[in-house]
Amino acid sequence: MPRTIRKVTALAGGVGGARLVEGLARVLPPGALTVIGNTGDDFRHYGIAVSPDLDTVMYTLAGIAHPQNGWGLKDDTRAMLGMLKQYGEEGWFGIGDQDMATNLLRTMWLAEGRSLSAITAELCHRLGVQTRLLPMTDDPLHTMVETVEQGVLAFQEYFVRHRWQPTVKALHYRGAERATPAPGVLESIQRADLLVICPSNPVLSIEPILQVAPIRRALADRQVPCVAFSPIIAGDAVKGPTVKIMRELNLDPSLAGISRYYAGLIDGFMVDTQDMQVEVTVPKYAANIWLDTSTKRETAAAELLAWSESL
Amino acid sequence: MPRTIRKVTALAGGVGGARLVEGLARVLPPGALTVIGNTGDDFRHYGIAVSPDLDTVMYTLAGIAHPQNGWGLKDDTRAMLGMLKQYGEEGWFGIGDQDMATNLLRTMWLAEGRSLSAITAELCHRLGVQTRLLPMTDDPLHTMVETVEQGVLAFQEYFVRHRWQPTVKALHYRGAERATPAPGVLESIQRADLLVICPSNPVLSIEPILQVAPIRRALADRQVPCVAFSPIIAGDAVKGPTVKIMRELNLDPSLAGISRYYAGLIDGFMVDTQDMQVEVTVPKYAANIWLDTSTKRETAAAELLAWSESL
Repeated sequence: MPRTIRKVTALAGGVGGARLVEGLARVLPPGALTVIGNTGDDFRHYGIAVSPDLDTVMYTLAGIAHPQNGWGLKDDTRAMLGMLKQYGEEGWFGIGDQDMATNLLRTMWLAEGRSLSAITAELCHRLGVQTRLLPMTDDPLHTMVETVEQGVLAFQEYFVRHRWQPTVKALHYRGAERATPAPGVLESIQRADLLVICPSNPVLSIEPILQVAPIRRALADRQVPCVAFSPIIAGDAVKGPTVKIMRELNLDPSLAGISRYYAGLIDGFMVDTQDMQVEVTVPKYAANIWLDTSTKRETAAAELLAWSESL
Repeated sequence: MPRTIRKVTALAGGVGGARLVEGLARVLPPGALTVIGNTGDDFRHYGIAVSPDLDTVMYTLAGIAHPQNGWGLKDDTRAMLGMLKQYGEEGWFGIGDQDMATNLLRTMWLAEGRSLSAITAELCHRLGVQTRLLPMTDDPLHTMVETVEQGVLAFQEYFVRHRWQPTVKALHYRGAERATPAPGVLESIQRADLLVICPSNPVLSIEPILQVAPIRRALADRQVPCVAFSPIIAGDAVKGPTVKIMRELNLDPSLAGISRYYAGLIDGFMVDTQDMQVEVTVPKYAANIWLDTSTKRETAAAELLAWSESL
């Protein structure tokens, strides 16, 4: 535990973000870590309120995430989905049976008028998660993917139904102009000793958070270091379509490009040892950043914290 | 197939009703049978619209009902319920994972403004059920159980959560005065050549249907025979709390008492051979009325139809 870092706030998307968050939670004392989660992927499926990124972080922190997929629950089954298919439904979004319990509670509580942030806190509490997980906003903010082949798709349609194959023309963050940060989000940024941008897709997972204007402003106005943890190793995304999409959007998917993408928001970039020679726009630190085991997540988080003290 | 009976309409509750309905469906030609199902047990559980009796009839007719329980689906699992319990929820109502698919579709379609009768027809169609299954009403009508020990309970709370143990003081059919028959219900009664009251609990399963005043009136005004199939064998309910509850309500739970309960509505009573000697208020026919196998259901239904021709 570094001496001067007492409060850390991390921006996280789904699987990659959740894995670094797990490492940080293991290294930091209870109560030190706040995670601001992406809700741009949230959607209704069969009327059920699904929050994929929040749940991925929550399940990972609770130690019950699917070890290979990263999302969903380990040992979950898909009996409901099988029956939906028997009814002739397409069944393209794979809600597991146990996972359904989470979604059902959230849907019911939302219908009762509770906020997504209150619901997320309650779910985390019941699963014994001590890290504070905040949705970026309680307001609707939907990442919409404008594609060449299929027109505008809701995020999960693009990502899951079409397996991120259509060519991305533009991303729209519907509702962003009216979205305000969820309670606690700005305070957690303003009171942090260190800010972290997790290894999540910059345009799909982190950008929706930054689209909540007061969040971006609070990050830009920071008095403490903010470090990004690379989602790219040796030119390829650790997971998912980061490189493909950034290219399609005429963004440079290299580490240099990503560090420019975060211009004004980051003061350091933690990259893989394979990328030690790559030029970026901010101080960098190279380490093993594969996060496939809990031990590696913990080690990488400890290194990130130790290095951050020097910034 | 009897010569003069071309259209049959049956009033049915849950498991017992579903089993006779299966027999009738096997004996009658496609399109001949209409079932009016009880919706007094319907309720919302975690925001999900559950219709236990309709689903029991539907699953039985589709050949996918749980063979022992009678309700729910065969080979269903309870992973969602297990996870709800992990969240600290009570989990007293056992929705199976496959069963959840049915409830999810119903809930979503209700939210889209479709009627319960249209939804039930759609679900049946998708499961290949050819028998017409109509909810008694598309309006809310809730069987409420006033108990000595626990006050007024919603039906499923009484029946499932408290395992029908509290003493029943009175039954209330909330919403009955405003409920109108679902589309097709009255016509199916008026056009039938034979009406059947299935072996369901008279006060819990059949009475809610009769509480929709135009349905009771149409039955009372019938020009064709209506026969009841006994839910009692040798003084005991084939399944569930019929005898217990009728006693608590100061009703006579004997065959004679049940035939009086249906006074003015029935013209014949099909009873078990063990009850051959029991006096009832209408002509009776004795047969083996255990309906534990499909063959027995078919045989009993064929006997019922043949006998009904003589009425």
